[in-house]
Amino acid sequence: MKFVRFQTYSKIRYGILEGEDVFEISDNFLRDNFKKLNSRFDLADIKLLSPVEPSKIIGIGLNYAEHIEELKFKKPETPVMFLKPSTTVISHLDYIVYPKRISKRVDYEGELAVVIGKRAKNVKIDEAGNFIFGYTIINDVTARDLQSSDSQWTRAKGFDTFAPIGPLIETDLEPTNLNIKTLLNGEIKQNSNTSNMIFNVYELVSFISQTMTLLPGDVIATGTPKGVGAIDIGDEIEIEIENIGKLKNSVR
Amino acid sequence: MKFVRFQTYSKIRYGILEGEDVFEISDNFLRDNFKKLNSRFDLADIKLLSPVEPSKIIGIGLNYAEHIEELKFKKPETPVMFLKPSTTVISHLDYIVYPKRISKRVDYEGELAVVIGKRAKNVKIDEAGNFIFGYTIINDVTARDLQSSDSQWTRAKGFDTFAPIGPLIETDLEPTNLNIKTLLNGEIKQNSNTSNMIFNVYELVSFISQTMTLLPGDVIATGTPKGVGAIDIGDEIEIEIENIGKLKNSVR
Repeated sequence: MKFVRFQTYSKIRYGILEGEDVFEISDNFLRDNFKKLNSRFDLADIKLLSPVEPSKIIGIGLNYAEHIEELKFKKPETPVMFLKPSTTVISHLDYIVYPKRISKRVDYEGELAVVIGKRAKNVKIDEAGNFIFGYTIINDVTARDLQSSDSQWTRAKGFDTFAPIGPLIETDLEPTNLNIKTLLNGEIKQNSNTSNMIFNVYELVSFISQTMTLLPGDVIATGTPKGVGAIDIGDEIEIEIENIGKLKNSVR
Repeated sequence: MKFVRFQTYSKIRYGILEGEDVFEISDNFLRDNFKKLNSRFDLADIKLLSPVEPSKIIGIGLNYAEHIEELKFKKPETPVMFLKPSTTVISHLDYIVYPKRISKRVDYEGELAVVIGKRAKNVKIDEAGNFIFGYTIINDVTARDLQSSDSQWTRAKGFDTFAPIGPLIETDLEPTNLNIKTLLNGEIKQNSNTSNMIFNVYELVSFISQTMTLLPGDVIATGTPKGVGAIDIGDEIEIEIENIGKLKNSVR
């Protein structure tokens, strides 16, 4: 099922997407007790919002072997975790703001995003799927020059607008074999498959939950494949993941 | 003024502390429109909670020169930022849980904590004070072995219970000249003054706000002085800051 969070005038609503039709539901889809309402909207008439408002976004660095090679990093023995603050989150079609005064090199990073459905602590790999609500797309925008100069990646990954998320959450998905593509101004720059991850989605949920409790709505950015590159003001970035959809944002 | 967040039976309340008396207020003190209510509680009868529920905790590493020497790090040119997830937060007198399966070396770090009062973005140093609500104490508990082995500090700093915050927020305070002490089982281990910070509180608020929007209730952990050391199960850690109070937690 495809879930969306959206806005009509000033009201925030939740819905189920079927084709071009959005059927409103009574409550956040992360709560169990939502009901289908009678209101229907055309997808073209609504503003999609980031489908979740995560209390935390856990990013995973260096999770595709070919991306590690292009950055000249070493392959990690355990997943490399970092956090993006919730103030980075923007929606499908929102603008990424280039922090020109501070960074001279900002990159896109197309990634599969895991959305947590249930409070998860010390979860085993073979039970991790039970704690996942569904999947969406994230652009883990990164100031590459600050990632090199700072020992910690907090600043490089943490600017306002550096986490476009959306356009929707797909709940019925096998996450370990999905084509993932990033297009910059219409040109394919990243083209891989989630089967190339070093640590798969279930291993990541299990690993992270050994340290911190994952809460409903929390997001895991599962790492980017090779082909990262710079963006500039005026550019348009589209990230497409098989069976989820396309996340599009421009830079200003 | 001294503000507290507290619990009586199952109800969470906010109040103003005067001596041993807690005068309840009608709303979270971070909102402007709270009123003093008629209810009064004895400090001894209530459970103090972390005075804030931050959307983000920004930690500052290496902000006291003598601490940098003891860790054999280099003095940074700009503040070193990291994030602790909100799931690390516990209250005064709550237990720090030692993650024995994963870490063999966990340290206390006594620190002055800044509590943000107003949404802050691109704030100048000389205006930073206007965005600060007040000050409290944080123990930036750190798995020192993982801080060394992991390139990013997210795991070392991010275990559940690794951010005791409290016991109260003091709003009338000059933060640049406060004695700060940490006691382990009654023995003084850290003994310094906030005047020894490399980047002071106002510089930190300004610096962080160039990257990310600070929201009301967000917390900045301003770095720890020299004298960090290991804790173990059964230990009691007290952090005392002049004119704020004492934050006490035990390890289990």
